[in-house]
Amino acid sequence: MIIGETYGHGGDIYKNKIRLDFSVNTNPLGTPPEVRRAVEAAASQLSAYPDPRCGELREALSAALGVDREDILCGNGAAELIFQFVFALRPKRALLPVPSFSEYEAALEAAGCQPDFYPLRRENGFLLTEEILEHITPDTELLMLCSPNNPTGKCVPRELLQKILDRCRETGTWLFLDECFLELSDPGSAVSLIPVLYADDRVLVLRAFTKLYGMAGVRLGYAVCRQQDAAEAMCRLVQPWNVSSLAQAAGTAALDCTEFVEKSRAVISREKAYLLRELRKLGISVLPGEANYLLLSGVPGLYEQLLARGILIRSCENFRGLGAGDCRIAVRTHAENAALIAALREIYHA
Amino acid sequence: MIIGETYGHGGDIYKNKIRLDFSVNTNPLGTPPEVRRAVEAAASQLSAYPDPRCGELREALSAALGVDREDILCGNGAAELIFQFVFALRPKRALLPVPSFSEYEAALEAAGCQPDFYPLRRENGFLLTEEILEHITPDTELLMLCSPNNPTGKCVPRELLQKILDRCRETGTWLFLDECFLELSDPGSAVSLIPVLYADDRVLVLRAFTKLYGMAGVRLGYAVCRQQDAAEAMCRLVQPWNVSSLAQAAGTAALDCTEFVEKSRAVISREKAYLLRELRKLGISVLPGEANYLLLSGVPGLYEQLLARGILIRSCENFRGLGAGDCRIAVRTHAENAALIAALREIYHA
Repeated sequence: MIIGETYGHGGDIYKNKIRLDFSVNTNPLGTPPEVRRAVEAAASQLSAYPDPRCGELREALSAALGVDREDILCGNGAAELIFQFVFALRPKRALLPVPSFSEYEAALEAAGCQPDFYPLRRENGFLLTEEILEHITPDTELLMLCSPNNPTGKCVPRELLQKILDRCRETGTWLFLDECFLELSDPGSAVSLIPVLYADDRVLVLRAFTKLYGMAGVRLGYAVCRQQDAAEAMCRLVQPWNVSSLAQAAGTAALDCTEFVEKSRAVISREKAYLLRELRKLGISVLPGEANYLLLSGVPGLYEQLLARGILIRSCENFRGLGAGDCRIAVRTHAENAALIAALREIYHA
Repeated sequence: MIIGETYGHGGDIYKNKIRLDFSVNTNPLGTPPEVRRAVEAAASQLSAYPDPRCGELREALSAALGVDREDILCGNGAAELIFQFVFALRPKRALLPVPSFSEYEAALEAAGCQPDFYPLRRENGFLLTEEILEHITPDTELLMLCSPNNPTGKCVPRELLQKILDRCRETGTWLFLDECFLELSDPGSAVSLIPVLYADDRVLVLRAFTKLYGMAGVRLGYAVCRQQDAAEAMCRLVQPWNVSSLAQAAGTAALDCTEFVEKSRAVISREKAYLLRELRKLGISVLPGEANYLLLSGVPGLYEQLLARGILIRSCENFRGLGAGDCRIAVRTHAENAALIAALREIYHA
């Protein structure tokens, strides 16, 4: 058994010796000190089982989001909730725009569903357009969207999202909307679907603490779903203690870090502009996305040449709909970004 | 949606105001300081994704168990591995001795399997006997055993376990053996099935860090399974990052705490003898189990009367095959056990 040898994501700092990691899309400012301290404090009480109801955390989320506590479901990272949702729904037909995050497809396949892929067009900047509406039919049990999309960084335009929601209401289609990167994106949480959901909407909105609060190692995500039956079905598929005490403590502390979030968004906005400018100066084709990462077309061997310099980026060759040369880089701190640009300058001017 | 309101396990210190918790079967000595310190140290690196291969931890487990690293699968607590295994196997027919841990049944039902229950007999001290062999037929796709059993504390006798293994080899039945409490039990890991498994045995042995190292809040369990196909199927059912960095660091540190384990076993052995003696003096019927917990028959209302004194025990009324008055108490430190006995003395001599 070769567990994890087929791992096809970013962040594999365990297999590679690296000094700079641009392959994962977490907050460039790292973890707020409050979160670290909350984990350290929780470390003195490891013996007790976690609260199966995530009571305090869901209360804090309820207050932060303006959503009933009963409509919030916590998970061992957002990734667990993807599997949990897909297994609870077990759709026969699902529609997946591509390229997108590969765990949707992995979860669907594990649940016995071979999804229908809807190709986003490169010549259109991989933007989702109204054309998708024609593909949402009464046979479509599930539509899985990511906004901003990973790895393209493109958000679903707000008006289109409303049309998709209306269309899904007509066809009885479940809408899974991954907003894991939304709070770090240019439009931010102001365009979230969460506040506009009706109680009978077949919608699940996914969020992560992972990226926003730099706590990928802790594992914590949540979903907002106002359909009680679906959420209960999801609960039955997992153990009662899936969210660790450490994650619950970290998450509750994180929700107080509003200044940290604002500061992070400012850094990302400034540094993304820097990266776009410098990449273009080097003649590198880069997609101007709205997320805290950028998709670019690199020269052949770029991934390997950067790795040789101790810099890990995300090769996107294994994304459905992308190919050789497609790479994703996270927006990091200025010092890190400048080091990346310096390395790229060496490679491109060699 | 009322998430977790139907929670039917011990350890619910979140809903109840308590000063002493006898309802969970974790190590009475709590968490080794080395494990706490490992979590604190890992708290400074929360931003990175966990190693999806759990490389260092599986290496350490491999050395500790004398098992190939490739045969070890780590999970977000042993409970996740129960669901993962049952969903990978998706048996149509499964055999479950009862009373036993309710998550086996919960996982089977979530996977669409209504198990066949094999009732352990109270008059026989709930001991598993050779009679079970007749019930293992070629139709039995899966047999789920817990040794020592929860909540009876009885181990599967070693000779019987070998006969069950032989029988399962004949019938092609998968054997799921939960050894989560074995290392804290009287016979200890010396009677584990792990060292005697052949490469083609359809056996999964489940282990937890939760109980042995007092780290229920961290979530960490593992399985030993020498069938590569089954383990790979299990991997496909979950996200790549299901085991947090904190859990991996804690687990690796825990495996060095061999003196802590020896000391814990000594305390449990001594304190269990004390509890058995004192409970019997009070005329309370108690099953002399081999685990770090005891099943007893209490007077009506015992659970409530102890709770009124701030002491939480595990009412076993909701275990299949048990009923009113059946309670489980963990073996705790001497001070805690003496406080429990004092409270029981008040209740029984009132």
